[in-house]
Amino acid sequence: MSKPSYSKGLVGVIAGESAICTVGTGQGLNYRGYNVNDLAEHSTFEEVSHLLLYGHLPNKRQLEQYIRRLANFRQLSTAMRAVLEQLPGSSHPMDIMRTAASVMGSFEPEDENPNNEKQRNNQWECGDRLIAIFGPALLYWYQYHKNGTKIETRTGPNDTVAQNFVKLLLQTDNPDPNMVRAVDVSLILYAEHDFAASTFGAIVTTSTLSDVYSSVCTAIGTLRGPLHGGANEAAYRLISQFKTPDEAEQGLLKLLKEKKIVMGFGHRVYRKGDPRSPIVRDWARKLSEIINTPYAKNLYAVAERMEQVMMREKKMFTNLDFYASIVYHFCHIPTDFFTPVFVIARTSGWVSHIIEQRQDNKLMRPISIYTGPDPAKTPYVPIDKRLERSKL
Amino acid sequence: MSKPSYSKGLVGVIAGESAICTVGTGQGLNYRGYNVNDLAEHSTFEEVSHLLLYGHLPNKRQLEQYIRRLANFRQLSTAMRAVLEQLPGSSHPMDIMRTAASVMGSFEPEDENPNNEKQRNNQWECGDRLIAIFGPALLYWYQYHKNGTKIETRTGPNDTVAQNFVKLLLQTDNPDPNMVRAVDVSLILYAEHDFAASTFGAIVTTSTLSDVYSSVCTAIGTLRGPLHGGANEAAYRLISQFKTPDEAEQGLLKLLKEKKIVMGFGHRVYRKGDPRSPIVRDWARKLSEIINTPYAKNLYAVAERMEQVMMREKKMFTNLDFYASIVYHFCHIPTDFFTPVFVIARTSGWVSHIIEQRQDNKLMRPISIYTGPDPAKTPYVPIDKRLERSKL
Repeated sequence: MSKPSYSKGLVGVIAGESAICTVGTGQGLNYRGYNVNDLAEHSTFEEVSHLLLYGHLPNKRQLEQYIRRLANFRQLSTAMRAVLEQLPGSSHPMDIMRTAASVMGSFEPEDENPNNEKQRNNQWECGDRLIAIFGPALLYWYQYHKNGTKIETRTGPNDTVAQNFVKLLLQTDNPDPNMVRAVDVSLILYAEHDFAASTFGAIVTTSTLSDVYSSVCTAIGTLRGPLHGGANEAAYRLISQFKTPDEAEQGLLKLLKEKKIVMGFGHRVYRKGDPRSPIVRDWARKLSEIINTPYAKNLYAVAERMEQVMMREKKMFTNLDFYASIVYHFCHIPTDFFTPVFVIARTSGWVSHIIEQRQDNKLMRPISIYTGPDPAKTPYVPIDKRLERSKL
Repeated sequence: MSKPSYSKGLVGVIAGESAICTVGTGQGLNYRGYNVNDLAEHSTFEEVSHLLLYGHLPNKRQLEQYIRRLANFRQLSTAMRAVLEQLPGSSHPMDIMRTAASVMGSFEPEDENPNNEKQRNNQWECGDRLIAIFGPALLYWYQYHKNGTKIETRTGPNDTVAQNFVKLLLQTDNPDPNMVRAVDVSLILYAEHDFAASTFGAIVTTSTLSDVYSSVCTAIGTLRGPLHGGANEAAYRLISQFKTPDEAEQGLLKLLKEKKIVMGFGHRVYRKGDPRSPIVRDWARKLSEIINTPYAKNLYAVAERMEQVMMREKKMFTNLDFYASIVYHFCHIPTDFFTPVFVIARTSGWVSHIIEQRQDNKLMRPISIYTGPDPAKTPYVPIDKRLERSKL
């Protein structure tokens, strides 16, 4: 019997309908119809998160209310702090994010509503709580294990997510507004990207009618892998290896000759370029000019040369992760926090998809092609007749 | 433009190849070629877990070694106990399971191996640790919050997973061997079921090259939903509503008339019957005879009548969850622990699929049909021009 054909990795397979985001439809990247360039230019992350979760851009009153709502959710409970203190300082920061989401499911559970699977009353609150708590939880854990301090995670009641994050990270009340805005813009660009693996994973979890926290845990665990969210960290580790643009060119040519994967380039759903990349590249250049040290200027020059070489040699374009990694480095974000920052941003997209999936749900249960032993030729063997075999 | 057709819920869509399990291929249910009836009749859960994870049934020496290995992993670290004490007694038990898996990712992380994505050295150890720790973690949390006691979670060094679970649950050194074997058989039957939603979710997470703990967290969160693992709890809540077989018949006919979903019946991939159901039904009957109280005999009679009515009225068969719920109740397992027991069993299947996916991986990234606002007709609106709108 010949094996049926199928699309490995579900490449090009339609898994559902969604009104949230256009990716690779030929219309550019849009969140609920709004072009991502306009959002990155004129909006804050809170406006974008509100757009994704609540379906429309907030007016001034709604935005102020939303910012205060998130600020109120930033206080960590005694139990949350105790859990974060128990997690080793050597933990992978993405494991902190996943555990923070998981314990929130115990501390602030979602309402069960078996009679109405299409909506649960506090699904938005769960999403907002997660967006608000992730930065504080990560940075409480970080400052506790790095410096032994138990920080207060609420900052100003009108602070944005980006402001709060930079303040807690750098332990300053007056962060550089350019850095804050650069982080803010990166959150907008990372907020949503349709059926990316992490979002698709969250949809699979949601499809059994599980709760928001479970679905977000799935998304975090999925984002953790180097083929997805881990790419921005891998990109920075690559870029920062090279001391000069010329060295970068030689090093990159060597990698290409060895047919190694170069992180930060290309994207499954974009053919000609990632629309988010020029926006974040502009921010990387701007920050390198503001910082204005030979180190910063050189790092940006290395990245730019790598972009040129990859386009010349392989016709490959930089994706969001490439220059975002430079931006984060310039904002003093430790390299292994790049993917956790991605989590904070994408939670707005994940929860939007979770809420949407509930509106018209069907259990996600595909099938496989069986390639194992023929049951007709595999009789049961009693334990005293079994041969010693090693694994697999 | 007409909407392209697609299979909602990925029904019938091939998502990969697998050598682990036959479900709905017309060959019955087999784990690595062995018929599940033989395994449930002649093997223990440890043999089945070894078969799934290591690819072959263990001989006597290997089995003894494997049982001791799992027994050794049952001790909870101080940090694990501290975390479990912080999780409220009112938590959903599946949240305890998900958090236990998540913190294990910090306490006993999987080796990173960026140079060999096909295998990580301690992937089997991570799987075995999870299988071993889940019962102890759940029951430590349970006994601590119910009775204020901090129990020792290691029992005998040759105790099986089923023995350890029943001992810790009932706080006895001499559990009824029939109950232990009934739980053991249920673990065999719940161990593996190909691309069920939870396993498929774990594969999506694995496909980004994330770690075992992240993938198992995904699986737990996905199993948590009432359309998947939650079904055995829902089945018991339904069965236990009815005082007599006649009352059950009337109640069921009423539910059918109202077109309500009856939990514990039917299955997406089985057309004629669930091969696991007769095995677990036999155990439910056997336990009802051993317990031999009017209550136990009546509960079994109610379940049997429900099976007859559903077959007569709807040609629908009982699935594994239906009689498993009776078995668990007879073993004094609290109803909201039914799905956590499912977790313990299925972790062997999940981790087998995680290991298999790594052998021939491709990022799982499907696409969606966009149904949202037309970007060409959605110009950006400055904040002071936005109207007040309510959510979605």
